[in-house]
Amino acid sequence: MTAPIAVSMGDPAGIGPEIVAKSWALRQKEALPPFVAVGDMRAIERVWNGPVARIDSPADAIGVFATALPIFSVEDGGEIVPGQPDTEGARCALRSLELAAGLVRSGAARALVTGPVSKAQLYDIGFSHPGQTEFVAERCGVAPANAVMMLAGPTLRVVPITTHVPLAAVSSLLTVELIAAKARATARGLARNFGISVPRLAIAGLNPHAGEGGALGREEIEVIEPAVALLQAEGLAIEGPFAADTLFHPRARARFDAVLCPYHDQALIPLKTLHFDEGVNITLGLPIVRTSPDHGTAFAIAGKGVAEPGATIAAIRMAAEAAAFRARSCG
Amino acid sequence: MTAPIAVSMGDPAGIGPEIVAKSWALRQKEALPPFVAVGDMRAIERVWNGPVARIDSPADAIGVFATALPIFSVEDGGEIVPGQPDTEGARCALRSLELAAGLVRSGAARALVTGPVSKAQLYDIGFSHPGQTEFVAERCGVAPANAVMMLAGPTLRVVPITTHVPLAAVSSLLTVELIAAKARATARGLARNFGISVPRLAIAGLNPHAGEGGALGREEIEVIEPAVALLQAEGLAIEGPFAADTLFHPRARARFDAVLCPYHDQALIPLKTLHFDEGVNITLGLPIVRTSPDHGTAFAIAGKGVAEPGATIAAIRMAAEAAAFRARSCG
Repeated sequence: MTAPIAVSMGDPAGIGPEIVAKSWALRQKEALPPFVAVGDMRAIERVWNGPVARIDSPADAIGVFATALPIFSVEDGGEIVPGQPDTEGARCALRSLELAAGLVRSGAARALVTGPVSKAQLYDIGFSHPGQTEFVAERCGVAPANAVMMLAGPTLRVVPITTHVPLAAVSSLLTVELIAAKARATARGLARNFGISVPRLAIAGLNPHAGEGGALGREEIEVIEPAVALLQAEGLAIEGPFAADTLFHPRARARFDAVLCPYHDQALIPLKTLHFDEGVNITLGLPIVRTSPDHGTAFAIAGKGVAEPGATIAAIRMAAEAAAFRARSCG
Repeated sequence: MTAPIAVSMGDPAGIGPEIVAKSWALRQKEALPPFVAVGDMRAIERVWNGPVARIDSPADAIGVFATALPIFSVEDGGEIVPGQPDTEGARCALRSLELAAGLVRSGAARALVTGPVSKAQLYDIGFSHPGQTEFVAERCGVAPANAVMMLAGPTLRVVPITTHVPLAAVSSLLTVELIAAKARATARGLARNFGISVPRLAIAGLNPHAGEGGALGREEIEVIEPAVALLQAEGLAIEGPFAADTLFHPRARARFDAVLCPYHDQALIPLKTLHFDEGVNITLGLPIVRTSPDHGTAFAIAGKGVAEPGATIAAIRMAAEAAAFRARSCG
């Protein structure tokens, strides 16, 4: 019997518990594989009346999944009030993440889905990683720079080459080496997690009209084009730089398996324009499969019953598919 | 009898003539108002077999529009080969633009739609304006800085605050004065051309997550927020800065009549992701109505019969609607 997927619930005061419970409620309609929620059982009970089953071993999740939401409970003793994050909750979120990642590393679970956490709350309790991705990378013995964030929706996959930096700093951060590292990781990740053996990659220009031959900026000529030439010489199927505004309409999306984007919003704008409620963040370059719904804790709507589980469902499904692709290629 | 719309055909070797002819062919299905094509009649005949009628006065377009494409012909004597632009063609494109703009300024036509031109070709013949927008602004006695480009599709309108400049220069170009000028022109333009008396405006942040309270850049705090406060004090309904990747999904689009974006791709990416074949460029701040299909000459596919007329049809329709709103508010 296959192992379940481990889903950390994220901050107990955010929408994480609700969307995990709603995902379980839709397990049949959405044909979801068995998963185990990792987090404070009380956080689920606070926002949901459905059946839950506390389990002590991930393997038990398989048996109970049809009739109850299996929970590997992590409790910290603090009061849980949806919409009101506190340090007890942050500690609980961190322990849930640590435990869920450990279950996957040990093989007791076959893929990791991480619920939304509050970075501000985590920083307050001394969390020293920029985000969950870097934490998981460290637990896997992978340098954070080699853990690549891909955002994926039903019709588009994007990889930001730089991420959470001021826009004015992007030009100076963009190097041939950085682009090449991200492109190689993207190609490997698409093969490994999505079964695309020769991924077709596009790269967007940094400037309007991809610089228009240098008239609107020279980064395309001086950095991006040399990186593309290098990667093509290595055998990667990569094209560009293209004007960013021509890469995301339906005909363009059909031509590429993923688009590399020099900066955060260039990648996130089209992804969230098209797939706001179903965007998945998948980390490439790890020895384990890790996905995450591409949204935050949404404290403002926590506990109101209105949170959309679509992205969590998509993240669970993508994690299962990626784990299956990996199992096949190793089998 | 109302005057026709003047449609300049743009570069005769581009797709302009074909998409103007195809728009006429779809006049009944698309319920298009009468228009007159302004350009080299031979360019149309080179790529289209339908009926054309050479007219000498725009008023004559009304009578013939039902049975033939009315053309106000501008000929320069050069050979026309689709896909092969030359200086003769650039001169023809410029004369067509000049004539069409003049017809609208004089009242002989009621709105201007400009077909795609090749800037490189125009510069070769000494054209000293950055583009058609600035040329038309000058002919209307409006300073180029006060002619504001809005891109509009069926579900989204965007205004780039800076346009064709390197991305690395955007931060230093963004000022309270520039943002305020663009926002005011946008609000006035939405009232005048779209009949939206109190337009709801949003403004995007420059940095990822709109700067995340200064952690990812300070332009939001130092420039955008003060501009928004100033505009709100003037009575404008403007909100933001918002994280750019949260502004363009369906629920967000429903909340705003237009989104102001600090830089080109932030505006053009969502617009073209959603409305690649039907995006219209409308110039706000002019005494006349001017629209344009939001694409280029597409020399690579000119003469092949595959060019999509959707954006031209949308530009003609938007021009007619804007002219009607203006006539009503002055009547």
